[in-house]
This record gives sequence, C-alpha cells and structure tokens, in this order.
Amino acid sequence: MRIAILGGDGFIGWPAALHLSSLGHDVTIIDNLSRRWIDTELGVQSLTPMDSIQERLRIWKAESGKTIEFQLIDIATEYERLKVWLAENKPDSVLHLAQQRAAPYSMKTDRHKVYTVNNNTNATHNLLAALVEVGLDSHVVHMGTMGVYGYSTVGAAIPEGYLNVDITRADGDKVSQEILYPANPGSIYHMTKCLDQLLFQFYAKNDSLRITDLHQGIVWGTHTEQTRQHEQLINRFDYDGDYGTVLNRFVIQAAVGHPLTVHGTGGQTRAFIHIQDSVRCIELALANPPAAGERTKIFNQVTETHRVRDLAELVAQLTGADIAYLPNPRKEADENDLVVVKEQFLELGLSPITLQDSLLSDLVDVAKRYEHRIDMSRIPSTSAWTKTIGKSVVGRLESGVDFKRSGSA
Amino acid sequence: MRIAILGGDGFIGWPAALHLSSLGHDVTIIDNLSRRWIDTELGVQSLTPMDSIQERLRIWKAESGKTIEFQLIDIATEYERLKVWLAENKPDSVLHLAQQRAAPYSMKTDRHKVYTVNNNTNATHNLLAALVEVGLDSHVVHMGTMGVYGYSTVGAAIPEGYLNVDITRADGDKVSQEILYPANPGSIYHMTKCLDQLLFQFYAKNDSLRITDLHQGIVWGTHTEQTRQHEQLINRFDYDGDYGTVLNRFVIQAAVGHPLTVHGTGGQTRAFIHIQDSVRCIELALANPPAAGERTKIFNQVTETHRVRDLAELVAQLTGADIAYLPNPRKEADENDLVVVKEQFLELGLSPITLQDSLLSDLVDVAKRYEHRIDMSRIPSTSAWTKTIGKSVVGRLESGVDFKRSGSA
Repeated sequence: MRIAILGGDGFIGWPAALHLSSLGHDVTIIDNLSRRWIDTELGVQSLTPMDSIQERLRIWKAESGKTIEFQLIDIATEYERLKVWLAENKPDSVLHLAQQRAAPYSMKTDRHKVYTVNNNTNATHNLLAALVEVGLDSHVVHMGTMGVYGYSTVGAAIPEGYLNVDITRADGDKVSQEILYPANPGSIYHMTKCLDQLLFQFYAKNDSLRITDLHQGIVWGTHTEQTRQHEQLINRFDYDGDYGTVLNRFVIQAAVGHPLTVHGTGGQTRAFIHIQDSVRCIELALANPPAAGERTKIFNQVTETHRVRDLAELVAQLTGADIAYLPNPRKEADENDLVVVKEQFLELGLSPITLQDSLLSDLVDVAKRYEHRIDMSRIPSTSAWTKTIGKSVVGRLESGVDFKRSGSA
Repeated sequence: MRIAILGGDGFIGWPAALHLSSLGHDVTIIDNLSRRWIDTELGVQSLTPMDSIQERLRIWKAESGKTIEFQLIDIATEYERLKVWLAENKPDSVLHLAQQRAAPYSMKTDRHKVYTVNNNTNATHNLLAALVEVGLDSHVVHMGTMGVYGYSTVGAAIPEGYLNVDITRADGDKVSQEILYPANPGSIYHMTKCLDQLLFQFYAKNDSLRITDLHQGIVWGTHTEQTRQHEQLINRFDYDGDYGTVLNRFVIQAAVGHPLTVHGTGGQTRAFIHIQDSVRCIELALANPPAAGERTKIFNQVTETHRVRDLAELVAQLTGADIAYLPNPRKEADENDLVVVKEQFLELGLSPITLQDSLLSDLVDVAKRYEHRIDMSRIPSTSAWTKTIGKSVVGRLESGVDFKRSGSA
C-alpha cells in the first residue's frame, strides 16, 4: 500500500512510519518539522537524542533495506504544494498526524491558542479539500483523542464515536437518531479534534471520502520493535510539563529521584495505550477502511483505564519514588469515572499490552540511560487553563513544594 | 452601550450599525471590507449602488448627527491589531458578523472552501482568545445560522440550540443530559458555524465568556427604517447565484421578467426573517446577555417557515412571473419539513413582520428602480456541491432552460 504519513516526524508518526515500512508498505513522510521547532521554542528537548529526519531515514535504509521518502510540506499553510504532491503520488492511504498535539501547550498563552486552532483546523481541512479536488479516494486515518468526549461524569460507557438518542417529534412520537457523541473538550487542543470530527462528518457525507478517526488515549512507552533496532532510530521521549504524558513523566521523575507530580487529587481516570499497540492499531485501521459513502469509522484506541494516583502508586512501588500532590492547572473535576467501549480493535485481532507487563521497567531503563540529559527545571507543569489558575499554580510551585533532586530513587 | 460591530460593512452589519446608532449606542464598525473584494472577484455588484463605508458614515452623520467610527482590521489574520483595539476601547458588547456568509460561495472551488474555513474559524477564535487575553467580559453576539441543525428529517421541532437526551449508564439507569443540538451542516459555510458553536461552548465553560449565538434563517428585504432615510444609506441587495438569498432573488427575477429559478422540486422548507426584524432581534439579544458562567445563549432568529415553491408561487401571483424548475446544485433531500421553536424573541417583545405584509411589494419597487443595473448572466446559480452535480447543473443550464429576458413581468 502507498501510504503518506502527515506528521511522520513526531512521537506517533515516527514509529508508525517504521512499523508500516517494515510491513512492506511504500511510506512517505510529509512533515513541516514543527515539533522540532517547538522544542527550540520551549528550550527543552526529548530525553532521547533526536537525529535529523534525513539521518534517521538513512539509518533505517541501512538497517532494513527499505526506503522511506521525506517531503518538507506545511500542510496547514501550503495547500497548493500538498495538492500537487497528492496528485502526483496518489497514495492509497493518508495517515494524518500533522497537528499540534499537547493540551498544555495549546493553553500556554493566547499565541499558542491561536496557533493551535489555526494550524490544526487548516491542516485537516486542507487535506480533505485537496483529496476532493484531486479526485482521490485515499483512505484517511486521523489521530484523534479520547478528549473529544470530555471527561464523562454521568457514568455511561463511552461508545466508539456515536450515540443513539431519542428525539421527540412534533406528533409526540420518539425517533431514534444516531449522532456523534456530544463533544465536551477540556482544552483548545482537544477542541480542535472536535472541530475535526465535524469536518470528517461533512466530507464523508458530501464527498463520500473514506475516513477513520482514532480516538486515542494517553500513550505511554517509547520503544517499538523497530525503534529498538538502532540507537539512532530511537523515538522521542518527552518529559516536560507540556509535551510529556503522565505515565512517561512519572517514570522519568522516578528515574532521577524527583517526586511524582500528581495534579489535583489524582482522582482523574484516564485511558491509556502503549506506543507499540498504537502503531499496531494504526496498521489495523489502515487495513479496514469504511466503504465510500459510509459514515466516518471511529475507534477508541485505548487498552486500559486508570486513575492518575493509582498509576503514581504503581510507579512508586516499582521504583521507590515519593509522590507530590500539586495544584491542578486544568479546569476539570477532581475525580471522575471513565468507562470506555473498545471492542472494535479487539475484534480485529489486537492483543493489548498492559501496564503489568515488563515494558514499564523497560521504560525505566530508557529513562535511567539518558538521565544526564534531563533538565530538572522543565519537569513542573506551568501552563495553566486560565489566568487565575495560573497564578495559583505558580504560587504553590514557588512556595514550598521541593523540586530539587531528592536522590531517593 | 459601547458596541463593536465586526463585519459592520456587510448585509446585516450595515443596517445593524445604523439601527444601534440611532438608538443612541456608541458604535464602531470593524471590517476588512472583504465583501467588497468578493464583489470584485466575482465581477458582480449589489443591485443597489454601494458607496464606500467612509462615505456612508459621513452621510449618516449628516442625516442623524450621530458618529459611527470605522476601523479597517482583518480579525482573521490581524490578531494583534484586534487585541490592541479591544484593550484600548473596551466595548461592552461585540456583535460578530465578520465571516464569509454564502453557502454557494463556500462550495465554489477548493480555494473558496479553504478560504471560508480559514477565515471564519480564525475570525471567531481570534475574537474569543483576545477577549480572554485582554480580560474583558464584553458580551459577544454572533450571527450563526439555522443551517447548523442541518435539514431535519425526523419531523421534530428544532429547539433553540439545545437538546435533552437520555444516556444509558453502565448500571442501566438512564441519565438526561443537555447537549448542543447535533450538527448536520449542509455546506462548508454552514460547517464553519458548527465549528463556532464548539468554540463558544469551550470559552463559555473555560473562561466564563458571555456569548449569544443567533441561529438566523434566510433574510429577505433590503430596507430598514434607517437605510430608507437617504439614498446613499441604502443596504446591499444581492441577486447573484452565490450571495443572493432565495426570496430576494425571486423578487428581482420577477422585476426583470426572468422566470423564478426553483432548484429541485422546491419542496425544501426554509426559515425566514425580514431584515428589519433581524436588526431588532440583534438589539434584543444585546440587551439580554447571559450571566458569566452560563452556557451560550442560543436564539432561533426566525419568524416563519415556507416551502421554496410556495414562495415562488406567492411572488408569481404578485408579479405575474413564470417559474422554472432547475437541477439542484446542493446535495440535500428534495422535500423536507421544518418546524422551528422561536419563543425567546417573541417573549422579549419581537412583533414579527411576515411575508403577507406590504414589504414584499416594497422590495419589488426597489428591484424595479435599479433594474438597469442587473447583469442577467449572473442570475443562474452555478456553484455546485460536488463536481458530479456541477456537471449536471451546467449541462442543464446550457441545454434548454431559457435564461433570456422574457419581458413577461
């Protein structure tokens, strides 16, 4: 299959590119390298050293004998170049990961809000408009998020994208209608993924585009089978307060003897998936497109759910780390339940990796190996959801909680 | 009240500015004048002659003694200038009409799709982000559309923005939850108004912004009390296939002896409102903001519903015009019912103007007066929803339907 991976230089895109290339697909990475620019902007870097995309692709060729092409295109601002590339290369599938993907970054300042909305919405819409204009029926697989559902408080299991509701007609009869699960995003980033859903709904209906939307949970881990093969093929490992995801942050905090930073009570239940399962799900989604004219196919790309404080305790037990409870920079309920329907990938043959597996200690090993690259000052999360919350978070951080290396790990 | 009208040079914005100014409010128009540029792009002009905004404001000052300020700002691309203006002027209310507003234009080519999504989404988001950043609690009144609901086919009355649905919990109990009425937009333009709804929902929840969204029907008429006062204060009257709205197009077709162009069977039921009621509703909405922390207040800004073919027959009876049934460029059902809840504006004191009133012949008089300015070739609607439909529409137009002046009016 000829696959274009938009955002193939990122945390999911890179291991997905190697995974799909290793399966024999003809892969091209299209990326504006914005994730590297954001590293530069924030003055923070991946724990694991990142070679240039060109160098990584050279190593991959040497290791596997397989070629992955790279095109530097900003799909959010270079619509015409995207269209020309699609017209000339006619991919069977487009894996669309080319969006700003961190909720805290999207809430940092007004500039970051404006950038995230502008970049993410135009990226998705430009792709869809270009496919229609060129007349391609490439299957689009998009990386969405469980966050489009918001944090459900009514205790209902979150279905895979759609909900049947009863609507009362003028004559009093009730009619059942299938709708997109009502959106309730918790950040600007999550909101852009809700906007994407409406773009997909429209283009599937009006132009019969074949689209799959993956509502992914929080990814943990860093290695996949391919990224292990050579030191320079290693994946990103973000640990900072903006881009680091919760479990990876706990592991790295433990590795350097930093207390595990739980925001709020830790009663927030979140959905998780290991990076190896993430790329396997992408493979399954690519192999099972909807038919033309069908609604957007939505998968919950999730293997398990945990409360944040339970995760912290698990990592604390494994490593001996302490836990620090900090103010929550997000505007959300302290405690929530989360039940997620996740049947479709299981039916397609996914055999989930769970937290009890050895991959957690594997992750601790990666963290310890690169411990010398950690900037301790970047571990606290300082992006806040509102200015009032921001003042309170910075206040607490400045007035007591010990962020110095404790040496207890 | 100090009111900023974003898009105050447009079809609703201009009469709204005069109406609010005449009531004694301190009005500033902020506009990028894009509607004039689109006239230039399409090579079509308002039936009524349009003086420059500066000239119109000079006349208004001479006629009424009241000053309306004008600022040339493109709010979709000039975020910083918008923010500075808001910080310096601190409006009590912002009336937001600064979006591309024609469904056919939004479907014309891929360039028009990309422009509409980019312009409309960034315009709304920039405004909301700037208000939060500056720390203003200005009430935002936004012009949305009945089209966010899609064309309901289940026969239920469309409520004012929100729907209560039952969600089944894991324990089997049903929980009633209020959701935004599920979006089902029929064009790229309508889709952008659905994206707006999610932006409003987020900013009302996260930042307690006070927002009102007016889900307006199709506007007919051209004059309001103020635009009648001087020939150079006259409002736009669009009759072309992209920007002309259905009833205004019928009237102008009748005035020049063109058959009334009904697309499809004319069985589409649409919601309508007269331009005078539109500006009155805006006045009522501005005077009744939601409280900070409340959900977005949504009004259906509609006074009556009609099938398109019934409207055509009404105008035909009044004028003696013929009716021509043409292929429908839109992807939609041939026939639909539409029942709209519209209690809120009635409760606030709106006394609706209906189609039976003398304003319809008033409109015919305007059309006849400026008949010499009509370019007959711009009357057919050629923007199509898909390329396949486009070929069929152009084919039919080229092969038989008489678009020459018939002289029968």
